[in-house]
Amino acid sequence: MGGHITVLGAGSWGTAFAKVMADAGREVVLWARRRDVSESITSTRENAEYLPGVRLPAPLRSTSDPRRALDGAHTVVLAVPSQSLRHNLTSWRSLIADDATLVSLAKGVELGTLKRMSEVIADVTGFAEDRIAVVSGPNLAKEIAEEQPTATVIACRDHDRAVALQRACTTGYFRPYTITDVVGCELGGACKNVIALSCGMADGLGFGANTLATLITRGLAETSRLGAALGADPLTFAGLAGLGDLVATCSSPLSRNRTFGARLGRGETMAQARSAAAGQVAEGVKSCSSIRELALRHGVEMPITEVVHRVCHDGFHPREMAGALLGRQTKPERER
Amino acid sequence: MGGHITVLGAGSWGTAFAKVMADAGREVVLWARRRDVSESITSTRENAEYLPGVRLPAPLRSTSDPRRALDGAHTVVLAVPSQSLRHNLTSWRSLIADDATLVSLAKGVELGTLKRMSEVIADVTGFAEDRIAVVSGPNLAKEIAEEQPTATVIACRDHDRAVALQRACTTGYFRPYTITDVVGCELGGACKNVIALSCGMADGLGFGANTLATLITRGLAETSRLGAALGADPLTFAGLAGLGDLVATCSSPLSRNRTFGARLGRGETMAQARSAAAGQVAEGVKSCSSIRELALRHGVEMPITEVVHRVCHDGFHPREMAGALLGRQTKPERER
Repeated sequence: MGGHITVLGAGSWGTAFAKVMADAGREVVLWARRRDVSESITSTRENAEYLPGVRLPAPLRSTSDPRRALDGAHTVVLAVPSQSLRHNLTSWRSLIADDATLVSLAKGVELGTLKRMSEVIADVTGFAEDRIAVVSGPNLAKEIAEEQPTATVIACRDHDRAVALQRACTTGYFRPYTITDVVGCELGGACKNVIALSCGMADGLGFGANTLATLITRGLAETSRLGAALGADPLTFAGLAGLGDLVATCSSPLSRNRTFGARLGRGETMAQARSAAAGQVAEGVKSCSSIRELALRHGVEMPITEVVHRVCHDGFHPREMAGALLGRQTKPERER
Repeated sequence: MGGHITVLGAGSWGTAFAKVMADAGREVVLWARRRDVSESITSTRENAEYLPGVRLPAPLRSTSDPRRALDGAHTVVLAVPSQSLRHNLTSWRSLIADDATLVSLAKGVELGTLKRMSEVIADVTGFAEDRIAVVSGPNLAKEIAEEQPTATVIACRDHDRAVALQRACTTGYFRPYTITDVVGCELGGACKNVIALSCGMADGLGFGANTLATLITRGLAETSRLGAALGADPLTFAGLAGLGDLVATCSSPLSRNRTFGARLGRGETMAQARSAAAGQVAEGVKSCSSIRELALRHGVEMPITEVVHRVCHDGFHPREMAGALLGRQTKPERER
């Protein structure tokens, strides 16, 4: 393939993933919304605002002009927030080559439409599913930028395309695996924020490792049930895009969802927790509603998501959570 | 069912599980090897040595006489260390009713024979497999004794027997699920100590949440491959006895395997780490050898177990671990 790879979005994950591909020897262009950010990357080889202290390699160029960024790109990586992906992509559509590969780094379910990010991309671009790939896994940007060993998953319906992307981002510290289950890969990423909120609540209530592990395991079980209803492979949730991403999020002191949940568990109100988070609610607060709605539409029972929704939107206290979860009828671990 | 339930072994997990069943309304007899321990439990309602500060409920009686403990027991719970289970059970065999249900709380693979605990039990007693059950999950004894919410798995080939045991230990804080996959349930418990050692090593080397999550996920993947070769259901490893137990162990500051691994990761020798652990090596140091041997016998690739084995027994440095794991050929996440 000629041309270069363009990453649209110079937040911490977009920048770290651009660095990985440059380290793997690819020519990479990183588009930043703000001109001061792209100019600073070009002149100092550092994204001081979103990834301070990390030296970006020379094969990585930066611009704030989408036309220059996308001209000649055979692969376009979308690294913008999930709820603004549709709007952004619509404005870029005419600049993207019709034979490009599109790669989503965004995690979430679109409010209102209840669509996964690859569905939003297909909607806006008209691209066939086998040209759209998704990257997900235990991917805390700062640790990858520090070249700590990690693995990830690249999901694409077209396995050969996934393998080409795998080659484009394999380095001594970053090990990508391929799968073809795009639905499972995306649902794992979307649901983990809700489960991380519940883990934070348990932590705030003073519970320890058993409760954390129980919430992670049963949270994955309900994610997997939703996945089965939407056509995902249940084994995807036992992999890097399910379990791996979830454990990284729930173990990291940097996780905003976990921290936000812990404040609610300690008895703070939504308003207090929000103001401690610089006025922003955690991602899981929004996505628990769209995921719950998706579950209701497909007749899937998601008790942890339900409880998180009640705490975040109906004034339920997290203390009642344990009772609501443990008080249900005992049953087999899987449907028999 | 008439009679009572006997728990053989008054360590922290045996005592906590006896408390759960007494809280569930069952008549429970707890056998302690040492007479001073059983007498102290009877007189103070506390096992001050192994579970200090926890009040044991009245329907729980204790004795150090195996004959008194086992007379009239319809269910016998084995809570002794895995490597001494065969020896202990041989001495108790004639005291156990021929129609009793046997329940294993022990986790490990017997050195030399490479047998799982339920296989050792069948060997010694001659009981059919459908009379032998296994309990496993995210079960840190201290947290359960404090009545923190947790879930667990009860595995038995005979589903009705698993359901009867489930009823015998369901309380407001302890939620058991049933499965029929005994092999998977036992392998999850045996392999987690080895993976916890590797997580400790990564921690000692200064790596963060991504590396931890990657080791947990890929560690479960290799456990699952071994399980498949031995007839287990791969989904068991995504459940409480796989993922759940592993995450609890790897998240808890109380885990001996994780702490031991961290010492090795920081550059201590085996002898130094052992002396810091009061002369004892962590369980994973022993079981990495029997699990590796089992994997070799069945032609299963277990790269994390292999690396842990080399560090513990061949003088390999944990720093070489990352290279050994990431330097392998890239591949799909699951076999295609």
